[in-house]
Amino acid sequence: MTQFRRDPVSGRWVIIAAERSRRPRQLNAIGEPNESRCPFCAGHETDTPPAVLLHGRNGPTDSERDWQVRVVPNKYPALTEFPSNQAATSLQESKTGVGVHEVIIEHPQHVTDVCELSAEEFLRLFKVYRQRIAALSSDPRWRAIILYKNQGERAGATLEHVHTQLIALPTIPVEIENELSTSIESQRVKNGCVACAMLSQELRGGQRIVAQNDRYSACCPFAPRFAYETWIWPLSHQSAFAETTDEELISLAAILCNLLRSMAAQLNHPAFNFVLHTAPLPVESHKEYHWHIEIMPRLNQAAGFEWGSGLFINPVGPEDAASLLRFKC
Amino acid sequence: MTQFRRDPVSGRWVIIAAERSRRPRQLNAIGEPNESRCPFCAGHETDTPPAVLLHGRNGPTDSERDWQVRVVPNKYPALTEFPSNQAATSLQESKTGVGVHEVIIEHPQHVTDVCELSAEEFLRLFKVYRQRIAALSSDPRWRAIILYKNQGERAGATLEHVHTQLIALPTIPVEIENELSTSIESQRVKNGCVACAMLSQELRGGQRIVAQNDRYSACCPFAPRFAYETWIWPLSHQSAFAETTDEELISLAAILCNLLRSMAAQLNHPAFNFVLHTAPLPVESHKEYHWHIEIMPRLNQAAGFEWGSGLFINPVGPEDAASLLRFKC
Repeated sequence: MTQFRRDPVSGRWVIIAAERSRRPRQLNAIGEPNESRCPFCAGHETDTPPAVLLHGRNGPTDSERDWQVRVVPNKYPALTEFPSNQAATSLQESKTGVGVHEVIIEHPQHVTDVCELSAEEFLRLFKVYRQRIAALSSDPRWRAIILYKNQGERAGATLEHVHTQLIALPTIPVEIENELSTSIESQRVKNGCVACAMLSQELRGGQRIVAQNDRYSACCPFAPRFAYETWIWPLSHQSAFAETTDEELISLAAILCNLLRSMAAQLNHPAFNFVLHTAPLPVESHKEYHWHIEIMPRLNQAAGFEWGSGLFINPVGPEDAASLLRFKC
Repeated sequence: MTQFRRDPVSGRWVIIAAERSRRPRQLNAIGEPNESRCPFCAGHETDTPPAVLLHGRNGPTDSERDWQVRVVPNKYPALTEFPSNQAATSLQESKTGVGVHEVIIEHPQHVTDVCELSAEEFLRLFKVYRQRIAALSSDPRWRAIILYKNQGERAGATLEHVHTQLIALPTIPVEIENELSTSIESQRVKNGCVACAMLSQELRGGQRIVAQNDRYSACCPFAPRFAYETWIWPLSHQSAFAETTDEELISLAAILCNLLRSMAAQLNHPAFNFVLHTAPLPVESHKEYHWHIEIMPRLNQAAGFEWGSGLFINPVGPEDAASLLRFKC
């Protein structure tokens, strides 16, 4: 049984998911692999719940034997579709942890660094992301979908086999709500998208641009939380990742794949988090939102000051970060 | 030159402090000590800027030779008192990083675990905290003071010698602002303090209480972000830490010292963050606020989902956490 709970003093919501403490750990606290059977490798399909989607060499498949990408429900989910009826007292606001938590296993072999995937494999992966997001977006219970990857123990990974996770939420979480508010306000006051305006300004200035191709820009944000944090934006306004075409995904796979390789080369294979920010649901009601991907190398730790203030101290300016990571498309 | 910067899309403020990337690192990425001279040990006073406060065995002292607690400006500050005049374009909101960043060196010897300090040494420390906070509180430029300790590399520490940091800010940061809003709203609607009401409910229920003495309660919050997160609250309403009496500090030192020892014993000496939440400045204008200390063991990492959503997934319920950490005062 998992639960959303709200702190009465800070107003902050959290998810209490005691099931997750039973997860197997393949990475120990210093990031070294433990000797244990990997539940994500081909041939070990019975270690995970049955697949909700399989993608083979030539597209969708039904065969559990010849998959390239495999999507399964998380065995230790932060949220589940089962309801419960825990009562709450006046100050202790809580809601049953309803949601979906899936794992996208990105390769049949035991690949542990996503940089080893080819642009073609990234493209296949993006098609799977798009398919699962579209499927969950059509369920009227969900208001937001967070798709994220944690690579390396410092970035929160417990299993090293390359994978991405996806959580569908019944409410819009605070970070997405903040972006949405800014987008709505910008439409109201300036009759235009705040991210489009920001991108156009960044492209003119150029000092925080890491790379750019025909459809996407990789750019260190003006106010990054983490050293070398880099965001990828579609150059033309698009609200939801699920709206991308196959053509667009080819350009996206190319820029992302090269960005991750540049980070690996320049920053010595850092642990990192990757988060897709896409429009809340239903998408038709949130056209102001501009989807993007945020990649956060985990070189500096969020610490006491950050938890206490909500302000991040970043020891590397984004202009220096972009200058180090910059590459030609 | 450090800077506050605001992200135009998320609205989030950060501090860009490029000076900090020049810090020496005594702890490497896997938490092992590097061989290097510790700038905080007695005898190495010239490795840091001159002290702003010295506390000896018998109270305040002027002698750099016989200190027990020594407060110095941070050599690699996140904020400084020097102004600058960097221009900002319309979307790129920024302000000079004005503030104070100090380090409280907690022992003349190379002690690396604060649990080794006696209750008497904790008391001395709290008196120094109080003195520095009171001194900075009287400066009309500052609106908030964040005092925090990071112990262990996973908790963001770069030097292992026991120390606490203190940052004075020219604006109220978002986390303190959120707590303040809830406090003001509770006073308005219920004519009482939200934390006092919460504490009284927690003490009646008892399932999240870790320990309690005559003046303080150590309690796992209803909605903790981190596994085994525990907060210490004064039982009687008090807005600012600087208002504590010597008598009160004796009780506080006892409960905190025992709580940290319980965490060390039960959780195998975890890395942790410790943050003092005290009323914004001027204190007279924020009497609704109820000060407290938050202690966050860093067993689970904040990862992609947390950064993308602002929602924390906690794998240990606070009822189980309190049950494990509970001790008699």
